[in-house]
This record gives sequence, C-alpha cells and structure tokens, in this order.
Amino acid sequence: MAVTAPAAALPRLSLGEIEAQRLDVLTKGLPPGAALRLGEIGRQGWSLLEGDMPLPLAVIRESVLKANSAWMKAFTAANGLLIAPHGKTTMAPQLFDLQIADGAWAITVATMQQLAVARHFGVKRVILANQPVGRQDIAYCFAALRDPGFELYCLADTLPGVALLAEAAQAHGGANPLRILVEIGFMGGRTGARSREEALAVARAVAAAPGLRLAGFECFEGLISDTAGADRLLGEVVAVAAAAEGEGLLGAEPLVLSAGGTALFDRVGEAFNAAAFRRPIVKLLRSGCYLTHDSTVYSAAFRRIALETSLKLPPGGLEPALEVWAHLQSRPERGRSLLTLGKRDISFDSGMPVPLRWYRPGGAMARPQPMPAGHTVLALNDQHCHLGTPEGSPLQVGDMVAFGIGHPCTTFDKWAVLMLVDDDWRVTGAVRTFF
Amino acid sequence: MAVTAPAAALPRLSLGEIEAQRLDVLTKGLPPGAALRLGEIGRQGWSLLEGDMPLPLAVIRESVLKANSAWMKAFTAANGLLIAPHGKTTMAPQLFDLQIADGAWAITVATMQQLAVARHFGVKRVILANQPVGRQDIAYCFAALRDPGFELYCLADTLPGVALLAEAAQAHGGANPLRILVEIGFMGGRTGARSREEALAVARAVAAAPGLRLAGFECFEGLISDTAGADRLLGEVVAVAAAAEGEGLLGAEPLVLSAGGTALFDRVGEAFNAAAFRRPIVKLLRSGCYLTHDSTVYSAAFRRIALETSLKLPPGGLEPALEVWAHLQSRPERGRSLLTLGKRDISFDSGMPVPLRWYRPGGAMARPQPMPAGHTVLALNDQHCHLGTPEGSPLQVGDMVAFGIGHPCTTFDKWAVLMLVDDDWRVTGAVRTFF
Repeated sequence: MAVTAPAAALPRLSLGEIEAQRLDVLTKGLPPGAALRLGEIGRQGWSLLEGDMPLPLAVIRESVLKANSAWMKAFTAANGLLIAPHGKTTMAPQLFDLQIADGAWAITVATMQQLAVARHFGVKRVILANQPVGRQDIAYCFAALRDPGFELYCLADTLPGVALLAEAAQAHGGANPLRILVEIGFMGGRTGARSREEALAVARAVAAAPGLRLAGFECFEGLISDTAGADRLLGEVVAVAAAAEGEGLLGAEPLVLSAGGTALFDRVGEAFNAAAFRRPIVKLLRSGCYLTHDSTVYSAAFRRIALETSLKLPPGGLEPALEVWAHLQSRPERGRSLLTLGKRDISFDSGMPVPLRWYRPGGAMARPQPMPAGHTVLALNDQHCHLGTPEGSPLQVGDMVAFGIGHPCTTFDKWAVLMLVDDDWRVTGAVRTFF
Repeated sequence: MAVTAPAAALPRLSLGEIEAQRLDVLTKGLPPGAALRLGEIGRQGWSLLEGDMPLPLAVIRESVLKANSAWMKAFTAANGLLIAPHGKTTMAPQLFDLQIADGAWAITVATMQQLAVARHFGVKRVILANQPVGRQDIAYCFAALRDPGFELYCLADTLPGVALLAEAAQAHGGANPLRILVEIGFMGGRTGARSREEALAVARAVAAAPGLRLAGFECFEGLISDTAGADRLLGEVVAVAAAAEGEGLLGAEPLVLSAGGTALFDRVGEAFNAAAFRRPIVKLLRSGCYLTHDSTVYSAAFRRIALETSLKLPPGGLEPALEVWAHLQSRPERGRSLLTLGKRDISFDSGMPVPLRWYRPGGAMARPQPMPAGHTVLALNDQHCHLGTPEGSPLQVGDMVAFGIGHPCTTFDKWAVLMLVDDDWRVTGAVRTFF
C-alpha cells in the first residue's frame, strides 16, 4: 500500500532584506511623498477607500489569502498529499514563507532566476519544473547543490536533455545529486515524453548517470481541459513509475509523483492515491494559483472540484483574494466608461477582468457596493479599461471600481509591490515580487 | 500660415542613480555570480552567444535603437513636427534621455507613477496623456507644478473631469498652471469628447478655470485601423481647435495639437501640417513604439507609411531592435519544439512572437543564422513557448533562438533590466525599467 512519506518541515525564510527595502513613489502603488521601508507600510494607516494611494492599485485581501493557504494545508493533510506550490505565480518570498508555514514540502520554480530567488531567501527544497538547458542554468543548479542542506529536483523528458545534464554532472557534480523527475507528456502538449517507452528510456539514462538521481515522475495536466484526458495522463505517470520500479531503476528514497496545475488538482490526488507501490510515495501537487485564487477560470474550476471530487474537502473553500482597483475616468458615450487600468496592471490572458465592487470616495458611501449587473470589460489597452456600462449605472467620474482577476500569475508579474489589505481595504502590509 | 514653435531643448537627465544600482542574479537576465553596478555591465565582456547569461534574455540591439531614434529626429525635423515620445512604452529613463538627446520636446506618460519617474530623473516637460482622477493623482500634479521650471500637460474630455481638476486647482494651484489638452474621441473609442460641441464645452470650462490653462487639443488615433477613420478624427481635432481660436479661448502660448500612436503618425503629420491657425502651433507626435519598433504590427504599419505618405521620409527607416532569446528545451514530438520563454518574458497581445534567428552554442557556428521558413509560435504558456517546427528543421535541444516581438510596451514591462548588445550580441550596457 502506498504511503505518503512525511518530510521534515522546511525552515521559515529570511525576509529581513525585503522588510528593509526602501520604497517611494517610483514604485507603482506607493503614494507621493512616501519614503519608507517595506516593512513599515502596514503601520501607516493607509486606506484605499480614503484615497491614500494612487490607482490603479493591486491589493491582496489578507484574510482571504490566509484562509486559502490554510484551506490547502487542510486539504492536502486530509488526503495524504503534499504540495510544492509553484512559486512562479507570485515570485514573492513573503508568500513562499506563508506557504512553508502552512506545510509546503518544497517550492516549485520555473527558471534559474526564480531558483536563485528561492535559494536566496532560504528555501531548502526546490522543484525546478523545467529542464535546465543553457550552460549557465545547468551550472547554477550544480553550484546550488554544493550546499548539502539544499535539495533540488528538475525535469527531463528527452535523451538529449538528459545528456546535457549528465555531462554537466560529470564536470560539476558533487556528493549532493541533482534529482530528476522524468516528465510524461501527451501528443500536442508541452514538454514530456510522448510514450511509455520514451519515458522509460529517459528514466534509464538518468538512473545510469553519475551525479543524477532518478527521483520520480511527473506531468503537467494543466493544459488539458477535460478530466478524462487528465486522468489518462496521470495514469501514464503512475504506469511509467510502476514500470521503473519493476526494472529496479529507483533508489532508496521515497518515489515522487507530481503534477501541476490548480484546475484539476483533485484528479491528481485521486490518481496518485489509487496507485500502489512497494515504497513510500511523495504525492506532490504543484498548484500555484490556489493562494490568491481568481475570479474567473480557477473559480469555475474550483466549483467543478467541489461538485465532483471523491477527496475529502475541508470546510470553506478557495476564494479570490487578489483585486485591482481603478478610477472611473470618463463616461464619454452611452454604454461605455473608461477606467485607469490597463494591460500593464491586470491579467488579460484568461479572459477579461471582472468588475466586483464600486465605491464613491469622499464620504458619500459607507462601504463598497457590489457591482450592479450588466457591467462588463469590453477591452483593455495598455493603460485604459473599456467598461460596458448599462443604462442606469450609478458610476460617475471619480468613482473607484474593484476588478477581480483571471490567472493570478499574469497580474502578479505586473507589480513589484502589492498591498495587503484588511476587510475594510486598509493597508496591513506589502508584498514584494521578484520578476 | 501655421508655423511650428521651436522650443528650448530639454536638459539631459540625471542617470547616476540608475548607473549605480547594484544588481545580482535575483534580477532576471543577470548571470549567477554577478554582483555589480548597472553601469558596469557593459564592461564585463558578456556574450549572449557564448552563454554568459541565462535565457530567456531580452536584448536591445544598440545600433538599431540609435538608428531608430536618429531616424525619428530626422523625420520630425524634415516635416515641421515635434515629438513627445510616450515613455510608458519603455519606462526607461536612460531611453528617455536618448530621446531627449535626439530632440524630444517632452516625454509623455500615462500615470502618476510614470510622471513621478520622469520628474525624478529630470524631465522638465511632461504630457500626462490621461485625465488624472484620484485625489492623490491630482494633488501630485499640482505639487509637481511648484517647480517653476516644470511644465505639465494633462487631458480632459468631460465636464465632470474638468470639475475635479478645477476644484483641485483652487485648493492647490499656484503660479505655474496645469496645462490642459482637450481630448477629442470617437464613438466606440476610448476617452475623448464625442462631438464638437462637447469638446468646446470642455474647452470653455478649462479656459474659465483659474489654475488651469487651455493649451491645445489632442486625440489618440491608435485604436483606429483605417487611415480614413484616423483622418476624420484628426480633422476633428483641427476643427475644434479652430473653433476654440475663433471663440477667443486660447491664450498667448503656441497651440498644441497632438496625437498618439506609432502606426499612423504620418497621417497625424499630414493633418496638422495642413491646418491653418493665426498662432504658432506645436504639432506634436506622441509615438512610443518607434524607438525599438517591432517585428509584427508596427513593422507592417511602417511599410504602409513608407508606401503612402506625402511627408518627407529620411533614408533608412525603423527596424526592430528588441529581441528575446530562449533555449530550445525539448523536441518531444514531430512538428513541435518547446523553448524556455513564456508570457512572463515577451509580448503576446499583438500576435505571437516571431522566430528570427537561431544559434548553436559551443563553437559549431560562427554567427546566428536566419530561421528557416516554417517555424511558427503556436502558443505561449507562462514559462514555455510552443514552436511549430517543420520537417528538416535544424533545431536541436540546447540551441538558442531569437524571437522578434510585437508591441514593445508589453515586452518592456516584463523586464526590470534589458541588455544592450552590439551586432555580435555582446553586452554593451543595460537598461533599467520602472514598472
């Protein structure tokens, strides 16, 4: 019977450097006249609704953020899963630290620079969910492994890719091996071996290479829109891992089985929980977007999970924590308003932003009100939002509008600093990103 | 006859703070082990082709950049035009400085933070091509005007918008007025008055408000795909300005007529050159994307300009200066390669990137070769590029590929530092952005 190997908890991160960073109006979101350390932002009494900050402004609702993190901790614990949250979503060591406090087994990254950021702030186990290819990228992986307390996993999916890693392991490798997860893919998909035989060939090449260690198998199911397709891919991961175990390719460590996205993580858990191996398994989710969730694609995906999954679901659930606020700038014609928000400020690759709430500053209104029906984002330009505005809309020039986002990754990467706010949109802190 | 009012040249910027900034591997594009000041990057002898930097890497070909800047200087001078390049494209004070050295009359920005960046580095005349709306944004504009050597223009298109500015001018205004360009729009477009009467009502309100100064009229024609539509809009700008002159709304300064994009700037010049006023006119382009140009939409737009315009065209022309390089990571199936480049690294809002060149590192190849036909970007994920790869493609795992970009704005905002390279892709310097 497969069991989850519990791992030693990761140490918390060293965030003093971030807290000490000096900020001023040159950073988007900071008010004019501000000249302070990031760690002091939460003590200024700044209020979004009172207009203390220029808009557009990206804010994370702290209560929702923490509830999402706690929910994922409870969900993984209840179902024998572990999580290595994909750090590329936020690239915010402060949020990595929250995830580590809530039990993250590792932090996942996608590039050498992201790996460097994770290491710099003290992440001791990293999944590089990519095959490093360039001279600098590969050398950096082996340099990182000179720290005996650092554990690094990366992907491989083809023999030429393994050859690059094996050659570098000969040149730079030491006692601390580069652990490899063999990637299983599908026709028309992204990276990943397209057949069981190709995957096993890659696994054999890894197992035979000094300085590399065959640590497990993984896939990224996030590009698949149907659950049946995801189930097939996850089944292949399990089947290839079983064949590798049968061939004696695996070493003494627990076997890592991992998969990637936030839309289908229930199927990942179900597939890995149903697998039977002779050794302990680390059943590892790599979801990144759960932390702030969103107001479009992942909200819909989570509704499906809540309806369908056979896994244990803790009370509550994921809720959108990330909002971008803007001012209404002009209502120059019937049916259309323009707001101070654009492609520079908010995701637009998974559908348009969704207007959630509006507020009239200046004391006329106690709290933001839900956006009345019929308001829809028609288009985003670089620095403008076109909002379809129905007859009878209460919105007027100077009003504030909160937009929910789709796909957190592409909102985070537009902000060097995002504000944490309480349930009254008062600033409680700030999150620094490294893109 | 209308004449262009030549203005005192803007002073060059103070870039020492940028040159002195310390950088290391935490910034995307910097090699592992790097620990140096930005101003020292050009002296390291780094070579992209020798693999000295991790990929993906955004590079600007310095010779092309400078030629584009010089071309625009020659073009505007030959046709009696001035330019206030839109700084939102690059948000790079070092590039603003190049544009000022090549005669920029002002720098255009879109937001309060962008205005703050321009001011901080010493830009003395700014067009804020937006109506400021929020309390902080408007107050910041008036605070900036306390510097008597600073000249600020912003937009207004509705009476409620003017009212916000007029009220703030009463509270905060001093001797240095906030200059207003009344925006002319079109049905279904962005901001801008939809009729001549509305535009004149806005102009009258501005002219009557103490602390505001009616400086001119402008539009953004960049959302219009046909030249006839752009001509109509530009004709409206001229007609409204003529009516305002007829009503005696204009003061003693030269009248500013301005329009915005990089796709139709020939029509802007033609329309403004054909206008007749009793006073000097500043005929002001606000193109931003000309500086690096692109490999897709603006390349096509420039071909039309070269074929059609009646303006004088200097020799040469705009060429793409901005490239993003990536490694080929996997060829897991026939017809498809995956590269280490994604939505985090390159524009995807004006068509997919275009593979331009490839190079095999390690000494096998003297120079990058043009990409053979048939290679097409199929999709971008956050950190991956799917490249359609024809039968017989020479590409293999580990090769480098240079991608041309569409819409420079949305590539610049993905990089805190872009490398300047010579014609052999050796690093000659670095450009810092402020997003």
